[in-house]
Amino acid sequence: MTLSSLKEIIHMDPYGIALIGCGTVGSGVAKLLLEQPDRLAARAGRKLELRHVVVRAAQKSREAMIPQHLLTTDLRRVIDDPGVQVAIEVVGGIDWAKRAVLDLLAAGKHVVTANKALLATHGAEIFDAGRRHQRAIAFEASVGGGIPIIGALCQGLAANQILSLQGILNGTCNYILTGMVENGRAYADVLAEAQEQGYAEADPTLDVDGTDAAHKLAILAQIAFGIAVPLGTIKRRGIADIDLLDIRFAKELGYTIKLLAEAWLEPAAFLPSPLGRGGGKTGDQLAMHVSPVMLRQTTPLALVRDAFNALFVVGDAVGSTLYYGRGAGQMPTASAVVADVIDMAVGRAQQTFNSLRLWSGNHRNIVLREPSTMRSRFYLRMRVEDRPGVMADITRILANHRISIASVIQHEALDHAEAELELVPLIIMTHTVATGDFLAALAEIDRLPSVRPPSVYYPVGD
Amino acid sequence: MTLSSLKEIIHMDPYGIALIGCGTVGSGVAKLLLEQPDRLAARAGRKLELRHVVVRAAQKSREAMIPQHLLTTDLRRVIDDPGVQVAIEVVGGIDWAKRAVLDLLAAGKHVVTANKALLATHGAEIFDAGRRHQRAIAFEASVGGGIPIIGALCQGLAANQILSLQGILNGTCNYILTGMVENGRAYADVLAEAQEQGYAEADPTLDVDGTDAAHKLAILAQIAFGIAVPLGTIKRRGIADIDLLDIRFAKELGYTIKLLAEAWLEPAAFLPSPLGRGGGKTGDQLAMHVSPVMLRQTTPLALVRDAFNALFVVGDAVGSTLYYGRGAGQMPTASAVVADVIDMAVGRAQQTFNSLRLWSGNHRNIVLREPSTMRSRFYLRMRVEDRPGVMADITRILANHRISIASVIQHEALDHAEAELELVPLIIMTHTVATGDFLAALAEIDRLPSVRPPSVYYPVGD
Repeated sequence: MTLSSLKEIIHMDPYGIALIGCGTVGSGVAKLLLEQPDRLAARAGRKLELRHVVVRAAQKSREAMIPQHLLTTDLRRVIDDPGVQVAIEVVGGIDWAKRAVLDLLAAGKHVVTANKALLATHGAEIFDAGRRHQRAIAFEASVGGGIPIIGALCQGLAANQILSLQGILNGTCNYILTGMVENGRAYADVLAEAQEQGYAEADPTLDVDGTDAAHKLAILAQIAFGIAVPLGTIKRRGIADIDLLDIRFAKELGYTIKLLAEAWLEPAAFLPSPLGRGGGKTGDQLAMHVSPVMLRQTTPLALVRDAFNALFVVGDAVGSTLYYGRGAGQMPTASAVVADVIDMAVGRAQQTFNSLRLWSGNHRNIVLREPSTMRSRFYLRMRVEDRPGVMADITRILANHRISIASVIQHEALDHAEAELELVPLIIMTHTVATGDFLAALAEIDRLPSVRPPSVYYPVGD
Repeated sequence: MTLSSLKEIIHMDPYGIALIGCGTVGSGVAKLLLEQPDRLAARAGRKLELRHVVVRAAQKSREAMIPQHLLTTDLRRVIDDPGVQVAIEVVGGIDWAKRAVLDLLAAGKHVVTANKALLATHGAEIFDAGRRHQRAIAFEASVGGGIPIIGALCQGLAANQILSLQGILNGTCNYILTGMVENGRAYADVLAEAQEQGYAEADPTLDVDGTDAAHKLAILAQIAFGIAVPLGTIKRRGIADIDLLDIRFAKELGYTIKLLAEAWLEPAAFLPSPLGRGGGKTGDQLAMHVSPVMLRQTTPLALVRDAFNALFVVGDAVGSTLYYGRGAGQMPTASAVVADVIDMAVGRAQQTFNSLRLWSGNHRNIVLREPSTMRSRFYLRMRVEDRPGVMADITRILANHRISIASVIQHEALDHAEAELELVPLIIMTHTVATGDFLAALAEIDRLPSVRPPSVYYPVGD
């Protein structure tokens, strides 16, 4: 700091902060605020002052470094303190957090939140309240942990129409899949280890079933496409039923498997009329899903290992860009939360909030696209009887649906039990096909007497 | 857009823009401004109005899409127009551009620039002028083309002390190296192709000798470490003398070679006293260089191909993050320029400019570290006589300098000429060692009668 800028900082009022929640992320935020006052004052142009830490019960060990007089169990202390300019919501969960955020906005506090579930489900109501009370909401930590993804979409790529988003947005799933792919270990086995090491919750359902990734995708879609996506409309498939067999065959074909949250915009002009003839002019269409996807081993997203996150963004001017880093964890998430607090202190966050008008209605004529009209390549594994004619039956069905085959693997029976049944695995990688056509063909294949359903399939990324 | 926000935009004055320079990047910027008025108005909260395009000679074909009345060869038209709020400098070069930027700031225009050479050499003078005239300067396009790297460092990672930066910041070099590594083609050969395809200038000197990457590193160091680095103090090594032989041996060892711009901060507390005993308390130390570096084939930066750029940033809270995309080219660079214009129209760029006070003196007690004290692993290739005792001589010298060996390759003579001379290549990969110690050992090795100097060496990344 130069002397003159230091003096300016000293003469400005400190920026008053309240921390709501002091779990893993909250204590990381407190640590940064309490241990790095000079650094943060230099970046924010004024002192950041932590005035309250609201906790459920005041006696938890992790709050040892927080001065006792800051701790309270009463949110009213924050609401009634005119010295608090911004409140940081890191309690998680939906109901209590929503009430708290609405109360804080009504009391004239700006809000920084890391709560993706809250924004994905009640974004419109919360952002409306912010606008009504002329207070801003910032949420960099809600997607991708410490990676400044929200900033990139709101500011750095603002000149672009985003054409697609593909993200590894759930560290737990990526950690489990990495263990399965690299060490050939079964899902349950790696999950247990992830739980031990703190990479997975005791109840991992919302992570492994794709809900958490869908929350984050809904937030990104709001920024990138100006569309509020009801969570129920995002098709979700999780990782819990991924078989080591498919990971093994994927490897053999040069692929790996990742849980991706994906969204593609199809401008109206380029659309091959999925709505039938005479449908008239339609708007741009947006397709989204969360699904395990086979990716070539050399693509950037395929190389994201362990609990890391990454987002691949294509814009019409910038082309392909990628953002990579730790998507969770105490200090990475705290890094994003405190960046938002600095943005509030500087005044940028308020301007972003006012200019972008997120969750303020459907900004453009974008409609959600029927998932069955999406086009993709597919990986398909069938258990088939080991006798002549089977391959002919299957390939004829595919041909009837105009699905062409990119590659095939057929091995001998995998183990004794299968050999006894005279069953062998047959793997087919298709060329690009409409999802609906593929699923129709699959249904026919699974009805063949020589096939033991259900067959397994995954979309294949480019 | 909702109706109410559209109305607000209509009632706000348009934001007046002048484009100074209309080469490749300039015409990309004009294209975005002229073809996407609604999109940009929605993001900026007001209409962006291109009022002047200053060119050297008004008759060039690429300006066909620009309305004739906007074109001028006279910068004064911009300076005298009170309707221009921001000027975009994309002429390149230093002298004329500097004069123009200073005149524009003095005339009360904010400045957006893509000119890394200008900022790296005259950043202090230009930023001083901005502060004096209370006008802001934004420069996202100066490093990493369309990748929002500057935004990430200025805002997204603002809670962190940056500990290191490692960047592939020159697309020309990366394109050439990719051709050499993947296709085994010689430097001159790939360079010629890069020139044909527009990836390299007719005179590629400033790219291939590392100057361009050093300019960009100097700008990043200013943001990340608050230090103004005189360009002459950044040690530079280019790619023009890279031998295919070393690429081949690197591959054999599981490595590839990339031109990296790197900076590492060593906090005073952790420093193993390179300044000798009794030196007293020193500040943090910063080491920087631009050099070809051997990287393990699986590290994120090793996988960045062709003309793509990437920056790997480690922060003390966020940990490792990576930003990847097109580092040059018309529309990617225009994407970054127009993002800055939007930031100006919204008012964010001014706040960032005021709060960060870049190029306003050495903000912290950081000193540049003597390159010879930097520690690294090294790749070393020697041409040695094919007779007993040679290896013993070399390994004894390394041992005397306490340099331990990680791996060794010795092959038979590579070709007939070498065989006649009874010379063979000997490759040694060292463990971590101080650069000064390594170079001292190398000088001794090159004096051995059995070694044909000069031996070739490259640092090896982690």
